[in-house]
Amino acid sequence: MKYILGIDVGGTNIKVGIADYKFKLYKFFSLPVEEFSNPSRAISRILILLDELNKYNFFALGFGLPGLINYRKGYIHYLVNLKGWKNVYWRKILEKETGIRTFLDNDVNLAALGEYFLGAGKGSKNMLMVTLGTGVGGGLILNGKIYRGSTYSAGEIGHFPLKASGSRCSCGGVACLESYIGNKKLMRIINTRSFYIKSQLLSRIKRKKGKLTLEDITLAGRKGDTLAIEFWEDVAHKLGQILTGVVNLLDVDRIIIGGGVANAGQLLFVPLRKFIKKRVMKLQGRDVKISKAGLREKAGVLGACILAYHGLKGRQI
Amino acid sequence: MKYILGIDVGGTNIKVGIADYKFKLYKFFSLPVEEFSNPSRAISRILILLDELNKYNFFALGFGLPGLINYRKGYIHYLVNLKGWKNVYWRKILEKETGIRTFLDNDVNLAALGEYFLGAGKGSKNMLMVTLGTGVGGGLILNGKIYRGSTYSAGEIGHFPLKASGSRCSCGGVACLESYIGNKKLMRIINTRSFYIKSQLLSRIKRKKGKLTLEDITLAGRKGDTLAIEFWEDVAHKLGQILTGVVNLLDVDRIIIGGGVANAGQLLFVPLRKFIKKRVMKLQGRDVKISKAGLREKAGVLGACILAYHGLKGRQI
Repeated sequence: MKYILGIDVGGTNIKVGIADYKFKLYKFFSLPVEEFSNPSRAISRILILLDELNKYNFFALGFGLPGLINYRKGYIHYLVNLKGWKNVYWRKILEKETGIRTFLDNDVNLAALGEYFLGAGKGSKNMLMVTLGTGVGGGLILNGKIYRGSTYSAGEIGHFPLKASGSRCSCGGVACLESYIGNKKLMRIINTRSFYIKSQLLSRIKRKKGKLTLEDITLAGRKGDTLAIEFWEDVAHKLGQILTGVVNLLDVDRIIIGGGVANAGQLLFVPLRKFIKKRVMKLQGRDVKISKAGLREKAGVLGACILAYHGLKGRQI
Repeated sequence: MKYILGIDVGGTNIKVGIADYKFKLYKFFSLPVEEFSNPSRAISRILILLDELNKYNFFALGFGLPGLINYRKGYIHYLVNLKGWKNVYWRKILEKETGIRTFLDNDVNLAALGEYFLGAGKGSKNMLMVTLGTGVGGGLILNGKIYRGSTYSAGEIGHFPLKASGSRCSCGGVACLESYIGNKKLMRIINTRSFYIKSQLLSRIKRKKGKLTLEDITLAGRKGDTLAIEFWEDVAHKLGQILTGVVNLLDVDRIIIGGGVANAGQLLFVPLRKFIKKRVMKLQGRDVKISKAGLREKAGVLGACILAYHGLKGRQI
């Protein structure tokens, strides 16, 4: 039987999966990200891995990488948080070392691809995936393919400006969505006295734990805490403003939301869907579905396997 | 020799052009829009036209139409401002009546296509065309093809919200770009006493002519009138806010701006380019070019011919 090895390099760990040509996962496990601190360490680790897994007949390797990737050339311009990876012809190097066809792309693009074929995006034609975490990222699948843009940098929904003026974002922009609903900003809001003081429940948790987490807010919201409910509504409305515009502009039929912040669940999704339905244009909005990501931590690995599979067949996806 | 007849149906008139397979125009003229008030009148007129032009050997007809078009089926759902055109299988009808292969798409999509291949979009990979007129419309060419979206309604850049709250737009949305920089709104602003009173020059013109036009503001701006210059800067900043987000999200390398309002020229383009360069993400913004549309009133007809040409070759574009 023929297998693909999918590797998804994240900020804190590396996820590895073995899939067949129908994308059934046979193994799924993690490695510490340090093992990929630079290309030569990564190659050693991959060679060991292939040796350990030698009962699988690998026809392709697929990589999801957090940075700027030229998919066509199999080239890494740089990786965020992994400094040893500037300007690396990863495909060329790896194919030489392993003798196995290699394909790579940006990690968010591949998570979107995974969701599109196997997760919450199944059956859609045009889709946006949004990841809500420390950063607010995005991946676009248009007409069945990853949309990469002119410099392989498309998808930066987190840097769509919410208004004319506001705080300067680390990207150089002003009033970017991410600077309002990124994890860091949300943590700062909920741990500000003028915020939690308005809820007895949250004040009590803050006193007990020293620091409030987004999960605390979610649990409080589920118990009916008004402040917590309004907090998530506010996040939903800010996100909804930009997503309304994206649906009007791109006429996508599916929006998938993943990342830790999406764990707020219905507290986030109910006001978000309501907001978008109310404001979006009639035709574009009629059938648009806003769903939670379905593949969780496996999306990236599965996306990498899908990319590699189509790559083997000579199809750009 | 082989020719294509391109027909671009606009709000006030119909533009007709005859092109060869290299898109050289042999004739270009207008008809009153009333001649296309409904499908049967349009068919009669087209048959007469083909008769008059019978020295040209037409291999295809291309149509740009202001409404919702299913390009794949050659089907018109409806046209804006032309009520007799609900649910018409235009391709099927016309091919039967004329014996000539027929292709159709939305007019803004085809204007964008024309600019992409023959105008200000030449050499770009991914491009947004914005038309600034009564409405603020848009057409996207991504990876060399018209991007149509899931319901054939993509491109509505005019209905991207500028902020969280604001006036309700005719589309049902709130604070849409169009409701700030659409022609109607701009005309209302410049003819408001509290506006023009701040400029001696504009007050004088208003007194003399009764009504200020956008061209008056542009001429005043060229003479150095501060109020006029600031007026166009304000339009540029509002448009620039959304375009900054679009460049970050879609990583387009070209933005083409057409429509009457774009005639403000440098008064609009200089602050617009400056605003976007300052706020956009580094990589996406590095090579992005903001250009004025180059084909003017011929863009739609040429786009219709390009669509038909590729359609004849069996390629979806």
